[in-house]
Amino acid sequence: MKLFEEKVFKDPIHQYIYVQEKIIWDLINAKEFQRLRRIRQLGTSFLTFHGAEHSRFSHSLGVYEITRKVIAQFERNEYDEWPKEERLVALIAALLHDIGHAPFSHSMERVFQSHHEDWTKSIILGDTEINQLLTDFDRQLPMRIVDVINKTYEKHIVVDLISSQLDADRMDYLLRDAYFTGVNYGTFDLERILRVIRPYNGKIVIKDSGMHAVEDYLMSRYQMYWQIYFHPVTRSGEIILRKIFLRAKELYQEGYSFSFLFSPIEKLMQQDIGVADYISLDEPLVYAQFHLWSKENDSILVDLTKRFLHRKLFKYIEIDSADFHKIDLIKQFFSRHQVDPEYYLEIDSPSNLPYDTYGNNVESENSPIYLLNRQNDVEEISTKSDIISGIMGKRKTEYKLFFAMDYLKEKNIYNEFCEIVNCNRGESN
Amino acid sequence: MKLFEEKVFKDPIHQYIYVQEKIIWDLINAKEFQRLRRIRQLGTSFLTFHGAEHSRFSHSLGVYEITRKVIAQFERNEYDEWPKEERLVALIAALLHDIGHAPFSHSMERVFQSHHEDWTKSIILGDTEINQLLTDFDRQLPMRIVDVINKTYEKHIVVDLISSQLDADRMDYLLRDAYFTGVNYGTFDLERILRVIRPYNGKIVIKDSGMHAVEDYLMSRYQMYWQIYFHPVTRSGEIILRKIFLRAKELYQEGYSFSFLFSPIEKLMQQDIGVADYISLDEPLVYAQFHLWSKENDSILVDLTKRFLHRKLFKYIEIDSADFHKIDLIKQFFSRHQVDPEYYLEIDSPSNLPYDTYGNNVESENSPIYLLNRQNDVEEISTKSDIISGIMGKRKTEYKLFFAMDYLKEKNIYNEFCEIVNCNRGESN
Amino acid sequence: MKLFEEKVFKDPIHQYIYVQEKIIWDLINAKEFQRLRRIRQLGTSFLTFHGAEHSRFSHSLGVYEITRKVIAQFERNEYDEWPKEERLVALIAALLHDIGHAPFSHSMERVFQSHHEDWTKSIILGDTEINQLLTDFDRQLPMRIVDVINKTYEKHIVVDLISSQLDADRMDYLLRDAYFTGVNYGTFDLERILRVIRPYNGKIVIKDSGMHAVEDYLMSRYQMYWQIYFHPVTRSGEIILRKIFLRAKELYQEGYSFSFLFSPIEKLMQQDIGVADYISLDEPLVYAQFHLWSKENDSILVDLTKRFLHRKLFKYIEIDSADFHKIDLIKQFFSRHQVDPEYYLEIDSPSNLPYDTYGNNVESENSPIYLLNRQNDVEEISTKSDIISGIMGKRKTEYKLFFAMDYLKEKNIYNEFCEIVNCNRGESN
Amino acid sequence: MKLFEEKVFKDPIHQYIYVQEKIIWDLINAKEFQRLRRIRQLGTSFLTFHGAEHSRFSHSLGVYEITRKVIAQFERNEYDEWPKEERLVALIAALLHDIGHAPFSHSMERVFQSHHEDWTKSIILGDTEINQLLTDFDRQLPMRIVDVINKTYEKHIVVDLISSQLDADRMDYLLRDAYFTGVNYGTFDLERILRVIRPYNGKIVIKDSGMHAVEDYLMSRYQMYWQIYFHPVTRSGEIILRKIFLRAKELYQEGYSFSFLFSPIEKLMQQDIGVADYISLDEPLVYAQFHLWSKENDSILVDLTKRFLHRKLFKYIEIDSADFHKIDLIKQFFSRHQVDPEYYLEIDSPSNLPYDTYGNNVESENSPIYLLNRQNDVEEISTKSDIISGIMGKRKTEYKLFFAMDYLKEKNIYNEFCEIVNCNRGESN
Repeated sequence: MKLFEEKVFKDPIHQYIYVQEKIIWDLINAKEFQRLRRIRQLGTSFLTFHGAEHSRFSHSLGVYEITRKVIAQFERNEYDEWPKEERLVALIAALLHDIGHAPFSHSMERVFQSHHEDWTKSIILGDTEINQLLTDFDRQLPMRIVDVINKTYEKHIVVDLISSQLDADRMDYLLRDAYFTGVNYGTFDLERILRVIRPYNGKIVIKDSGMHAVEDYLMSRYQMYWQIYFHPVTRSGEIILRKIFLRAKELYQEGYSFSFLFSPIEKLMQQDIGVADYISLDEPLVYAQFHLWSKENDSILVDLTKRFLHRKLFKYIEIDSADFHKIDLIKQFFSRHQVDPEYYLEIDSPSNLPYDTYGNNVESENSPIYLLNRQNDVEEISTKSDIISGIMGKRKTEYKLFFAMDYLKEKNIYNEFCEIVNCNRGESN
Repeated sequence: MKLFEEKVFKDPIHQYIYVQEKIIWDLINAKEFQRLRRIRQLGTSFLTFHGAEHSRFSHSLGVYEITRKVIAQFERNEYDEWPKEERLVALIAALLHDIGHAPFSHSMERVFQSHHEDWTKSIILGDTEINQLLTDFDRQLPMRIVDVINKTYEKHIVVDLISSQLDADRMDYLLRDAYFTGVNYGTFDLERILRVIRPYNGKIVIKDSGMHAVEDYLMSRYQMYWQIYFHPVTRSGEIILRKIFLRAKELYQEGYSFSFLFSPIEKLMQQDIGVADYISLDEPLVYAQFHLWSKENDSILVDLTKRFLHRKLFKYIEIDSADFHKIDLIKQFFSRHQVDPEYYLEIDSPSNLPYDTYGNNVESENSPIYLLNRQNDVEEISTKSDIISGIMGKRKTEYKLFFAMDYLKEKNIYNEFCEIVNCNRGESN
Repeated sequence: MKLFEEKVFKDPIHQYIYVQEKIIWDLINAKEFQRLRRIRQLGTSFLTFHGAEHSRFSHSLGVYEITRKVIAQFERNEYDEWPKEERLVALIAALLHDIGHAPFSHSMERVFQSHHEDWTKSIILGDTEINQLLTDFDRQLPMRIVDVINKTYEKHIVVDLISSQLDADRMDYLLRDAYFTGVNYGTFDLERILRVIRPYNGKIVIKDSGMHAVEDYLMSRYQMYWQIYFHPVTRSGEIILRKIFLRAKELYQEGYSFSFLFSPIEKLMQQDIGVADYISLDEPLVYAQFHLWSKENDSILVDLTKRFLHRKLFKYIEIDSADFHKIDLIKQFFSRHQVDPEYYLEIDSPSNLPYDTYGNNVESENSPIYLLNRQNDVEEISTKSDIISGIMGKRKTEYKLFFAMDYLKEKNIYNEFCEIVNCNRGESN
Repeated sequence: MKLFEEKVFKDPIHQYIYVQEKIIWDLINAKEFQRLRRIRQLGTSFLTFHGAEHSRFSHSLGVYEITRKVIAQFERNEYDEWPKEERLVALIAALLHDIGHAPFSHSMERVFQSHHEDWTKSIILGDTEINQLLTDFDRQLPMRIVDVINKTYEKHIVVDLISSQLDADRMDYLLRDAYFTGVNYGTFDLERILRVIRPYNGKIVIKDSGMHAVEDYLMSRYQMYWQIYFHPVTRSGEIILRKIFLRAKELYQEGYSFSFLFSPIEKLMQQDIGVADYISLDEPLVYAQFHLWSKENDSILVDLTKRFLHRKLFKYIEIDSADFHKIDLIKQFFSRHQVDPEYYLEIDSPSNLPYDTYGNNVESENSPIYLLNRQNDVEEISTKSDIISGIMGKRKTEYKLFFAMDYLKEKNIYNEFCEIVNCNRGESN
């Protein structure tokens, strides 16, 4: 008996996203989920790749759809090791795993000590439409969803589907981000992976005939990190965002009187924001606040918000670790010329994540990828793949110095600055 | 002599967008152009097709790029009829043709009597970064660009490139909108059209061997109109937007005291907005204003803004012209049950545009598409193409009644309503 | 109980082709089916579009796969009107519907009065591996498959799936031929059509919300016919093929002694070929025979086979029906100059098929496409679609005169020829 | 002065292939070039990937087109280091580099000691249409083209374009083979590479900002080798082909009287084939010969040709080097059971090529890939790229034993065979 007629969303990545249960449909229509339409998936990447304007809403649907397809394959093949009764829990966790994200999460969270994982929990368990829908369906459901997203769910295979080295989350975002940026680094053979994925001993494993597809997926991830996610123009946008929040927070703490603060933003400053306010915190609100801040009486806040709105970003030069000892010199140089180094200078070193990109992470949650061979044994993939063993464990770090080059040039001190560090290694865009 | 090293933008539609002149680069970096990043190309379409989150910024680059490619072909083939000295005027007009758009133009312009064409003119001629850049390059340039966009430029072939039945604008948006929505109706063979396009006698014409590619383009356009641009869910979003602006304007005129109005929005209500304010009018501002309005003391404004933010749209039923006489009955029915028909009911009949979609418009600016045959004669395309003559002049209109179905159901009057009009012809999503 | 592990073929159109029954797998591996690898799907089209080298083997798998997907949708939605027990009959008929094709069917069949439909029947019912496999499975099966392919099967819905205006055959070949030629005219939204197709009252119908996808499909078909299938260079290749077979047949009938004739080709000439010989009749055999014929002692046969092998095709000029009365003049002109008009001249008028391309054919087997509306009524699609009614019934015919232009030029009589017909309307490639 | 109107070929990979010189057009129309239409690019791969039916003709056009684009970029940017006068030599060498290929080159060349490189030379310098066209254009041209293809041309940068680690040849075949097989491993960002390729110091180098695109290209190559080119089903087809030629040669040498031998094949057996015969040696001829051989009086030749025609290939099991000592045992086992090990058994170890796939080959012709940095220095790519250094020098070899499993099963000796080697490691398809 089907009370609910299958519905679809047209999607550029998966062609269609199929909704077969009323609870899924209702969750998508909950206001907390609709809010994800107003938060871009890739934060400041659109400043580099103008196509990257897609939202967390579309990504969340994509994660749901991949999870749905994996489970459909398990069911079609009647694998005993897949706990059939977990289907809905897995689908809902997939759908809601990003529900707690703030706009420009990376920048905002660092300044305000707010964690999207905590907010995900609060939204699922708190006084929200989503909680109501889940509770009405089954009183235990909200807590089970939170457990899956927290990776503490007892049936660990459900966790694996949503967050592991080869999960629905990553598979969707690689394909989606590649599509919207227009690059083709992120392309891999999803349909093949969906065919060779297996439940095995409480884990998700890959039939060994699919090894090359997994290699291709891992290489895509590696390329996407360095070419898209760590792109210096994108990082420059993030740095400016962070500086804006820092400056505003500092002013707030100093008692500066803003002309108008949106309630969620004021509460953030007070470190006292609740679920209701958090839910109305979206990118438009941040932008609108920036419009107002660009007319405040603080020259740094005004300058930084205009930079962000009009994309007058910081430039950068590549440095290496040997340059670190010069930082104090540079700061002094900036201060000496009335350029505040706290707001106009930043060393950026994206390095923590790439290690994570090729599957050898000591953190417990990053379990390795296992291949299932014809003898029904599992083997960690790097023991079989030359490509993966070749890149595994190679930590790559790039150091860049970001700064307001326009200021230095206006003040005619850029050449002097370049005597301190080698400016030949920059790159403009 | 090239002082400027070619720069590129990665673009999902054209792979790369090539910038070869400094003036183009500087215009793109002007704040008025960067503002287009904050205005979606397709207004409310993202409510139907979640991928349709791309901005007017990316479309404007695309129109520029297609124009650049057409001119490059003309130059490569050394066609005498192309006035070489117009290259830069054409490129800049292509880039800036949408610079005056407001957020959600269609809805906002109807309520506030503001026209994006006028604003395009104001931004190019007024006190803006763009005007400064153009004037510094050549004092005559701003007026020439405006003339091209106004279709009054003396070299009409330049106008044809930017706005005609087969112009760079339409070619880019069909491909781009198809890509981001994920449908494949909008796909046609751009590269073929770029090969067969010719300057001829002051017009843009098409070599007759390219006729089928033009047919395909016109069919794409037809399909995109009915499947994407006129999609009833998208229209429902637009209707609610319009109702919101109407209600706010009414309240403002009645002297209602809003808790906070953004300056550009207040000026709009006063019909007294200038360029500086207009430039800060973007989608985030509108959304942020809606967040605030959703907490005002007017139940209609609160309800409508929440509907828009949380995507609780109006439903619709198909009607036909024979139903028009029932409108008064329906309005009375609504009023009788305390549902304000001014805000909760709307007849929508997308019909004016489709006529325009297949190339036989009496309006002077829509010059027909001409084919150039081997005898160097031109012939209007519908005289050669069965497909085009088959659909030409067939005005298609669809009438739909949009209304707050949820209200009717809550009040238990939906069945009664359905006795007035036939509710079987609706469609949900 | 599944005794057979699902197998797949990698396919550029459908990604994977899924084989779930052993009988399907075995049929694919039968030598009569493997022979389809040696017959190109598009005959001489590769002479125009060099990518069009795909075989009837890949198309046959594609028709099977689309049929499989349609039936899977019917089963998933548990439609009563679909006769579940017919699944395997439908799949096998889809797979085998082209099994009787000869190499370059169109040309060869006209000369030798051989019909692939008859051969399909002979291969399924005769002494073949395929017949053996079918009979072993179920003695009634071969005859049932033949009935489906002959359109005489009692459950007409099964026939509809394989051969109707919107069948798996056409859907696969449009997509496949578009992909391999590299054009994008043939692209339509297969996945959408697969979602809206329904069994209804013994027929295949389309949910009316899918009307635009069907329009798009019909336009694709129309475009593919005129741009690909009727391309004059392709036709020129076909004409030469036909002339070769005609000449060889004439020589054979005159008692000419060929140096070597492959047995199947000799039997064809004798109008006495059986299944065993027919099965070894493939494109390589025809080509190899042409290599030999290009060294025979008949100058016409030598010339024509070299033309085909080395792609020195006939050129053409467009004519119209008013030119028909000149044909005798032209023939006389050719004869007068020792160019045999029987072999070096041909009027080609592709017109019979296009009528068929837009769905209003009086021939009984071309049943119209029906839409299923919300009231569960069906309506013929052209009554609802402007596009389809616009092109329906418009018979388009193009007349072209093909001839050995090189001969005329060598003999310095081309100008004289052009005084008889207008040579300006030609086109080279 | 342009006497020649630009012509195009529609191509699935490059959209259009542009021909701008009459000499290129004429070469394409030469019969020796048209012959490439009758030789598949990927030999027996179509037995595994049914889409892989594309010819060397289309690949040769693609190599030409990529070369044309690279040179166009050099000319557009007016790089001094590119010798402008070499354009036509480079284009023609690109077009003709594969002109000497035989059908199924890999298999045929091993048996008949014929080398396609020698034939390329013979066709360009010998009595052919191609030689005539080149000589008419410039008497020195044939020898210069041969020098480029032989890598002995004095301007080594021209050689680099056509054959180096990152040449037009490889770039085309990876993209083309990926497209036609339907896999997406071979996809990389050709347009990006075309943008960052530079002439430098007599070599082709890559601007360092394009490093990731080169990494992606090298990974594609690696994946294509292992997933497509070395696919065991494809290898099985090649092995059978080789066995057929071996058997026929053996019979010929023994004085066996064949019912009919095509002249080129007979000449091959006599090791005395000339250009005229070689040019008519194409795949159809080989297939037609196999049809005849499948009816000869030698049971081995009959069996092997039927296997190839009907795709009854050898199966395989994976072995490792430790199994090598068992080979004699296995051969004895085969002989003991009247299965001739010379024809029904083969060890295959694709390993020579993979080393070549990641760019660290000692052979002189495989010069490394160099990056050009902002200081105008070049650096070998593996010193900068973690990915490339990670896989460089890792020789990967896979050993497989191919054999007629069906024979062993018919004779009921398969289990006995599996006591000698471990049959669990096989794979079917």
